[in-house]
Amino acid sequence: MDANTLWQDIERIHAAAPLVHNITNYVVMNITANALLAIGASPVMAHALEEVEELVALAGSLVLNIGTLSPPWVQSMIRAGIAANKCGIPVILDPVGCGATSLRTTTAQRLLSELSPAIVRGNASEIMALAGGTPDTKGVDSTNSTEECEPAVRELAEQSGCILSVSGATDLIIGQGRTIRVFNGHPIMPRITGLGCTATAITGAFAAINPSPLQAAAHAMALMGIAGAIAAEKSTGPGTFQPQFLDALYNIQKKDIEQRLQVQE
Amino acid sequence: MDANTLWQDIERIHAAAPLVHNITNYVVMNITANALLAIGASPVMAHALEEVEELVALAGSLVLNIGTLSPPWVQSMIRAGIAANKCGIPVILDPVGCGATSLRTTTAQRLLSELSPAIVRGNASEIMALAGGTPDTKGVDSTNSTEECEPAVRELAEQSGCILSVSGATDLIIGQGRTIRVFNGHPIMPRITGLGCTATAITGAFAAINPSPLQAAAHAMALMGIAGAIAAEKSTGPGTFQPQFLDALYNIQKKDIEQRLQVQE
Amino acid sequence: MDANTLWQDIERIHAAAPLVHNITNYVVMNITANALLAIGASPVMAHALEEVEELVALAGSLVLNIGTLSPPWVQSMIRAGIAANKCGIPVILDPVGCGATSLRTTTAQRLLSELSPAIVRGNASEIMALAGGTPDTKGVDSTNSTEECEPAVRELAEQSGCILSVSGATDLIIGQGRTIRVFNGHPIMPRITGLGCTATAITGAFAAINPSPLQAAAHAMALMGIAGAIAAEKSTGPGTFQPQFLDALYNIQKKDIEQRLQVQE
Repeated sequence: MDANTLWQDIERIHAAAPLVHNITNYVVMNITANALLAIGASPVMAHALEEVEELVALAGSLVLNIGTLSPPWVQSMIRAGIAANKCGIPVILDPVGCGATSLRTTTAQRLLSELSPAIVRGNASEIMALAGGTPDTKGVDSTNSTEECEPAVRELAEQSGCILSVSGATDLIIGQGRTIRVFNGHPIMPRITGLGCTATAITGAFAAINPSPLQAAAHAMALMGIAGAIAAEKSTGPGTFQPQFLDALYNIQKKDIEQRLQVQE
Repeated sequence: MDANTLWQDIERIHAAAPLVHNITNYVVMNITANALLAIGASPVMAHALEEVEELVALAGSLVLNIGTLSPPWVQSMIRAGIAANKCGIPVILDPVGCGATSLRTTTAQRLLSELSPAIVRGNASEIMALAGGTPDTKGVDSTNSTEECEPAVRELAEQSGCILSVSGATDLIIGQGRTIRVFNGHPIMPRITGLGCTATAITGAFAAINPSPLQAAAHAMALMGIAGAIAAEKSTGPGTFQPQFLDALYNIQKKDIEQRLQVQE
Repeated sequence: MDANTLWQDIERIHAAAPLVHNITNYVVMNITANALLAIGASPVMAHALEEVEELVALAGSLVLNIGTLSPPWVQSMIRAGIAANKCGIPVILDPVGCGATSLRTTTAQRLLSELSPAIVRGNASEIMALAGGTPDTKGVDSTNSTEECEPAVRELAEQSGCILSVSGATDLIIGQGRTIRVFNGHPIMPRITGLGCTATAITGAFAAINPSPLQAAAHAMALMGIAGAIAAEKSTGPGTFQPQFLDALYNIQKKDIEQRLQVQE
């Protein structure tokens, strides 16, 4: 990936306005919907068992996020995921809090094995737990670095065939025998709730228009990091960061990407 | 309607602080509650079957919004709506995503027929689907203009006896043999999630203090459009728009309305 | 309490980043999570019956808020609360809308009697209703002053052994035979949804690191009031207040507290 491929995908999202179907958590529904709208995608949040298959049939991608999971919602995620697999649209899984409780760990592992997610995006602790390791998780915040979890991520990527996208100070995107590191971002970002979930939703928008899940995942993390850095420069704390972040997603120009993108493959 | 009648209603809301009972979707609960507080109304969000009748009895209006519907919530909407009809308080229905899935279409049609909403507020695609047409809907965003849907809206208004309030580049309020067009607003507004739902909630506040649902619907759309234009001038994208929009609702003066109101009847 | 004890607790939260487990309402999940992150705590929102005991075991405190209650969520609150009592971590109860419906009143009274909350935080109407009085409640907004409810609060504190923290123009913290009044705050604060719930969540963060629930409750109300006053100075209405409020929580300095704190014991 480079500035050209990222910009090309942003233009594709603007042009296609892909429908991204989210079954996600209560905390982040508003910010993830706003972030998707800001980049030109069309979000829909819908969890009723009775309608998820119909919505998946209209959608460009399906985002599953277990942040405030309960058994009926998991049932809907499974049904929607099976429909997405049948339709051939990419499933993006965010295993929020995997490792913190057995409900979360077993649910994330079940979604990974019963569905075929194109991309799994989480923090280092969550991905380590998903890989069967024992991370130092505390609730939904990671206490591991992406460096620590790299061997586990690599193994899980090989076993599962998924792209693994791990956010942290350095973002790590691993899959298909390749590794991309994204260095963009800002230290204030973990102090705002839902930015990880927003990264997952935006990954869904890129996956809807780019057939390579590796590129889609890397583009999403790079855009998040660049918009985050712009927002941090224009704000005075985590509160003013949020409106500036949505503005940065909305106003981003090719030159912002050319000047700021820091990736390594 | 004119600037005087709109301002009079805003002052009534300030004075009466009507309780608006919302059974609404997860995505917009926060922004709609904040918008209602900003204009001086008193919002309550409550969906438990066990308490909706009691709350309706305290409320000035009932807002039903199917944005993240599931069968138990629909059951509560029905119970609350019947109670509202009995108490004689106005019901405002927002058929979010009507036309996108059969669950949404049948639920919206059921709420329209089993209850007697005073006002239905939606986008063009939703209202066309509610009228039995086949809109070009995509998820919850409209792909039809209010002009296209005008004949269907007129027919539905006659059949149902409701006021139909259709948001778009031009807002269309039809009912009781009358048609009001509101030209206020700003093109960035569809890029912020929940502004349609906010229009519905604010319609609820006006309906609580104005016995004419036609005027209430038109006043709400005009206030939304004027506050939206003010916010757009003070912001640099959809993120900074939101806080400015709530400030504009809170700070609006009679002269803002006099200078900006653009309506046609 | 004084500026030194408050600042000491803020530093403790920064150092310990306590996990605060919230079973709370849909309207405020985002803002309360962001407020907890802004002060350096680590929020988790989780309501599934299957996982609440496991999360409580990791947490420093448990916040129960009935703002959009339904029977399954109450069941989870009970289970989590019993686990918290067993673990010896403090339970903070926010009886949102107590007095408005019998479901809310009986649920709040049940949570108070079946669990042993360390602190109950609500507005004057809610606390009067919880004490068995008949407040002038309207929905979830208080129509009583903290002065009016003081005798009822004092009695409830004695009967229950809880600390009662009542927010209003003057905040009243009563328990263990002591009374603390906090005069900080700003009149715009009731115009923003979820600030009461945010006070409760922040009370949870202080309770997680301070063994005195009286001090924890008073520190939380003082920090809320000071951050609210700072935010009000930097904003032009309830919309711009919110990002400024989170920034104020994040950026607060010892000198802000020394200059502004107004308490009486």
